[in-house]
Amino acid sequence: MTRAGDGAMTGPADAALRRFLTTRRGGVDAHDAELWTALERAADGGKRVRPRLLLSVHAALGGTDVAVAAEVAAAMELLHTAFVVHDDVIDGDRTRRGRPNVSGTFTDRARRAGVTPARAERYGDVAGLLAGDLALAGAVRTVALCGAPPATVRRLLDLLERALRISAAGELADVRLSLTGGADLAEILTMEEHKTAVYSFELPLQAGAVLAGADEAVIARLGELGRLLGVAFQLRDDLDGVFGEEADTGKPALSDLREGKCTPLVAHARTTPWWPELAAYVGDPRIDPTGAARVRELLTASGSRRFIEDLAASYGEVARAVAEPLDLGADLGGWVAATTAGLARAA
Amino acid sequence: MTRAGDGAMTGPADAALRRFLTTRRGGVDAHDAELWTALERAADGGKRVRPRLLLSVHAALGGTDVAVAAEVAAAMELLHTAFVVHDDVIDGDRTRRGRPNVSGTFTDRARRAGVTPARAERYGDVAGLLAGDLALAGAVRTVALCGAPPATVRRLLDLLERALRISAAGELADVRLSLTGGADLAEILTMEEHKTAVYSFELPLQAGAVLAGADEAVIARLGELGRLLGVAFQLRDDLDGVFGEEADTGKPALSDLREGKCTPLVAHARTTPWWPELAAYVGDPRIDPTGAARVRELLTASGSRRFIEDLAASYGEVARAVAEPLDLGADLGGWVAATTAGLARAA
Repeated sequence: MTRAGDGAMTGPADAALRRFLTTRRGGVDAHDAELWTALERAADGGKRVRPRLLLSVHAALGGTDVAVAAEVAAAMELLHTAFVVHDDVIDGDRTRRGRPNVSGTFTDRARRAGVTPARAERYGDVAGLLAGDLALAGAVRTVALCGAPPATVRRLLDLLERALRISAAGELADVRLSLTGGADLAEILTMEEHKTAVYSFELPLQAGAVLAGADEAVIARLGELGRLLGVAFQLRDDLDGVFGEEADTGKPALSDLREGKCTPLVAHARTTPWWPELAAYVGDPRIDPTGAARVRELLTASGSRRFIEDLAASYGEVARAVAEPLDLGADLGGWVAATTAGLARAA
Repeated sequence: MTRAGDGAMTGPADAALRRFLTTRRGGVDAHDAELWTALERAADGGKRVRPRLLLSVHAALGGTDVAVAAEVAAAMELLHTAFVVHDDVIDGDRTRRGRPNVSGTFTDRARRAGVTPARAERYGDVAGLLAGDLALAGAVRTVALCGAPPATVRRLLDLLERALRISAAGELADVRLSLTGGADLAEILTMEEHKTAVYSFELPLQAGAVLAGADEAVIARLGELGRLLGVAFQLRDDLDGVFGEEADTGKPALSDLREGKCTPLVAHARTTPWWPELAAYVGDPRIDPTGAARVRELLTASGSRRFIEDLAASYGEVARAVAEPLDLGADLGGWVAATTAGLARAA
């Protein structure tokens, strides 16, 4: 997909983020320095989706103070970094984008020092938890000190807290659904909206609008747009994880399925006669290419692929309809139109 | 020990904390409500050492805006709650003060629902991590919105961030020292100063002084006082954990020793000829009353008890000397004098 706000300057947000991280790199001591170095690597190389959304909507709605918006955009990326680092601790993941993540870096270091594997893992988890704490507190601090008028800062802090609470609740729901199993599609969509869509789409869009002085009706509508886009992308990700090329998605094919995650595709397939054969593959880390091809066949034959494609397209369509009257301009408005149309085309 | 600021009103800080927590209790959904209910229990029943220190020093230095100070004092308690909840996740502890802590509450709930023990533990860890995140972000937010002038808020946020970074570094150092073993006394004292003394004593004392408009020399001296008091109390805790009565300390006797923690007492004993016999008890969870008596004999015969008692008394003496010229008044000054003298007497 094209990127939101490719036309908007993301430079100022990158600069603000870099300033935040590099001024801390030296550390108050060697341990602190290690945590910040790891955080800098974790924040590096991201697509900056959230800062781009914030800066584009800010520009589209006539916002002029780019320096302030860039600070808040940097805070969005810090928040995202905190969530990613803490998520990896929760999931026990030690790599991200093919290289060691924060906890993986510290685990590796302890192993090389001759520490037993179990203790090295624990050390990695502790480092991930602490680094995530630093990034999270940094996000709140950066919003608080962004330089906007006090009433705007309070409003932004309220939006940030709401997003944090909803995404924490979504994360907890995700783990609980995986414990109990058998979640239905509605529960999964709500969980994904809470866990990801709110902080990744609703929050940056609304924060950019608040900074541009938009009125409440526009802010509310942007929230709706953000949630719809967020869920549409989650559905697309689910499809790409099964039917996409590893080179495009950057994730090993069928990784969610191998982990036994209850995704929308799986939730739909469970309601069809193809489920008994498919169920054998869900949670099997050793699916071979023949098995992978069979999984794709089953998810197609069951109608699950088509159902989720249609659902993604519908979310995209409603998002487009919500966006239209907002008059988001060529940059952001064009991106919403193109991306949501892309969801339909992929279907 | 008597409590700092028993004469100062801690009511306003308690009210601010209660307001913060109860307005969130309803939750944005059921998962969020569960996390906040657990946080409310975690924050309940504490001794409120940090809010008391902040409010007493604020009053002693002529601060007048108690409402603002109470907000920052409540933030100190939220920060402490976040650290306690995350520490329990790091240590795998499921109880605190004899009842289930945040992660224990969620673990128990999952177990009762029939989830396997390993998955129930994971659910508890996730809940603890998320609840700690909410409390940590809440602490930064509460300082940001405390109502002090912008320059004061920025100063307070700087102090808060510094304390967070130092205590995260101290926590990481603590885990690393336990991995490598054989830490010497100086390393352990630095780690304890970083992990606990800075956020528990230096931060509230300095924040109270900043809010009272104290000058930089006073703020710097209060920082020194805080670190000294913090280390003195850590040494006292170490002694009480071995030689104190369970009824007084609230912790099972010898719990640090049973866990194999390298405390100051242990670090000293390691340099004495009594170490080989003592070493057999360190990390043994099943020490019986005869063993416990022998541990106490060994730590006394080795001179370790006396050494740590003298060290605690010295820290207390220096703290008293640092406090004297600050003219902290009858309430706080009297408490510092009495408590530090108490350290000497206990020795």
